[in-house]
Amino acid sequence: MTIRRHSRGKKPNTRAMSHKKIVVIGGGTGVFTILSALKHDFDRLTAIVTMADDGGSTGILREEFGILPPGDLRRALIALSHADNKMLADLFAYRFQEGAGLSGHNFGNLFITALHRLTNDFERAIAEAGKMLQVRGQVIPVTLTSTQLVAELADGQVVRGETNLDIPKHDGHLRISRIWLQPTASANPNAIRAIKEADLVIIGPGDLFTSIIPNLLVAGIPEALRTTRAKVAYFVNVMTKLGETHGFSASDFVRNIEAYLGTGVLDYVVLNDSKPAPARLKPYIREHAEFVEPDTEAIHLKKGGVPLAVDLIRSKGYIRHDPKKVLRVVKMIV
Amino acid sequence: MTIRRHSRGKKPNTRAMSHKKIVVIGGGTGVFTILSALKHDFDRLTAIVTMADDGGSTGILREEFGILPPGDLRRALIALSHADNKMLADLFAYRFQEGAGLSGHNFGNLFITALHRLTNDFERAIAEAGKMLQVRGQVIPVTLTSTQLVAELADGQVVRGETNLDIPKHDGHLRISRIWLQPTASANPNAIRAIKEADLVIIGPGDLFTSIIPNLLVAGIPEALRTTRAKVAYFVNVMTKLGETHGFSASDFVRNIEAYLGTGVLDYVVLNDSKPAPARLKPYIREHAEFVEPDTEAIHLKKGGVPLAVDLIRSKGYIRHDPKKVLRVVKMIV
Repeated sequence: MTIRRHSRGKKPNTRAMSHKKIVVIGGGTGVFTILSALKHDFDRLTAIVTMADDGGSTGILREEFGILPPGDLRRALIALSHADNKMLADLFAYRFQEGAGLSGHNFGNLFITALHRLTNDFERAIAEAGKMLQVRGQVIPVTLTSTQLVAELADGQVVRGETNLDIPKHDGHLRISRIWLQPTASANPNAIRAIKEADLVIIGPGDLFTSIIPNLLVAGIPEALRTTRAKVAYFVNVMTKLGETHGFSASDFVRNIEAYLGTGVLDYVVLNDSKPAPARLKPYIREHAEFVEPDTEAIHLKKGGVPLAVDLIRSKGYIRHDPKKVLRVVKMIV
Repeated sequence: MTIRRHSRGKKPNTRAMSHKKIVVIGGGTGVFTILSALKHDFDRLTAIVTMADDGGSTGILREEFGILPPGDLRRALIALSHADNKMLADLFAYRFQEGAGLSGHNFGNLFITALHRLTNDFERAIAEAGKMLQVRGQVIPVTLTSTQLVAELADGQVVRGETNLDIPKHDGHLRISRIWLQPTASANPNAIRAIKEADLVIIGPGDLFTSIIPNLLVAGIPEALRTTRAKVAYFVNVMTKLGETHGFSASDFVRNIEAYLGTGVLDYVVLNDSKPAPARLKPYIREHAEFVEPDTEAIHLKKGGVPLAVDLIRSKGYIRHDPKKVLRVVKMIV
């Protein structure tokens, strides 16, 4: 699914496009942020997204239709859309609020589900959705195996299902000691190929145990990342999340990534060193989310890997990666 | 909603397009047949469709979302679609078969419903759906008033709701003596304008009381048809329907149309005079549908109106209007 035709009626992009191949691995809003940040400057973007989601609309569709989870794919497709018609992207992101049977369902998820039924081929369904959204680039499910995320917590408790970690029912201060897929899943060959052919692979940002690591649990993915000629960069989150990364500093994120990826794979760890004003942190107190401390000195990368501590966050509002700052770093390291 | 841009990558249509303005009034599969028959030869087609449907997926969406019925609009949009991507039209017509909340819902209906919620404007939602489907021409709801169809049968019984006539629970041999809208509905100004500016208006074919006459019950529509400079042609059905037109000959159809339209309005009545072989009628016995007898001699049109009795049906299979034969007649009378 690679569409590179010019949109009609649109002002031609006057910025020179880079043809470097960049692969972004993750899920959720993190992938969306990175892809959106890069889409106007890089024309060979690939998103490899987690297939572990089992909550909400996606969870219902998985259960009732037996399809792979569409939610993370949908977000990546919207991010890579170059449709003139903004309405189409809005529509794809629309969630029904009414209707006994429809309420809570996301329109884009229904779109992918219906296309899957018509094509009887999940990857073709994504490709067709991509055509309609005038996606430039590729969106690849990390695996085509239907699988579930299972975690063991520090107290020995076992939590099943991505959504039970994402929206924790357990004591969110407990650390996750181990996480795995059940059944085990093998990598989508297209994901392996994309990693092998890339110039740069970006892992994260995103929910560490529910959006990022699930990709690394797929057999074949860590191996591909170890052997690719591409540079591999990990973008550390800027805020912690209760139930997943409570109390984590930047080095805790890196240690966990390396536990599943192996050491000596990361060429760069990109972390934010700009601390927001206390007033901006206030809204996060209620959800027990905290600023990720940039303990750069505690990050030890093998084989010449470099931690890059830079200002990555927006200058006001929600504490998130700033697309312009992300773009600047990516242009530097690619 | 008028899109006349050229589709990319498509073989240019070598047939010369006529710029005559043709308006088709009806609903359901009848409008679909006529529009499909004409779409490659006429580039100014307009469909005016009934808003009386209240069954199935459409009925649920009307009730739960309080929107106007999308079903007939959807069919007309698909008929006028010039999208390269056949998948898009298939998707729009797709009906979910699984899922507690989704089963029975038509994807195109959900598409229009979601667009309505995003735009908060029913006509804009149709226009946006039309853009995505690369519709050439216009699809206009006959009214923007939410209304219900009510019928009185020959025995005095009153039936409420289009779907109760369409899929009759009453004795289907009983004739409908009177039909009306509750509450009364006034015409969409865009429908009036289209009729006024047309060169030819085609009424039907289609379910007489549930797809065709509901348009004529909308205040302003019969008046527009009486005063337009356009020629007005009524296409008589080729088969009867239990619960609506059981035992009807061609002249019965015309008499009922004129009861709601007024006399002296029809310039042409186009009826089929080719009787299919008995073997082709067999599958219709179970649903009590019969061949419509072409009793041309019993059709008396005022002000120079002409009945045209010609072969209109497909040469094999289901007894339906043949698009090529329809096109030939339309080219003759426009």
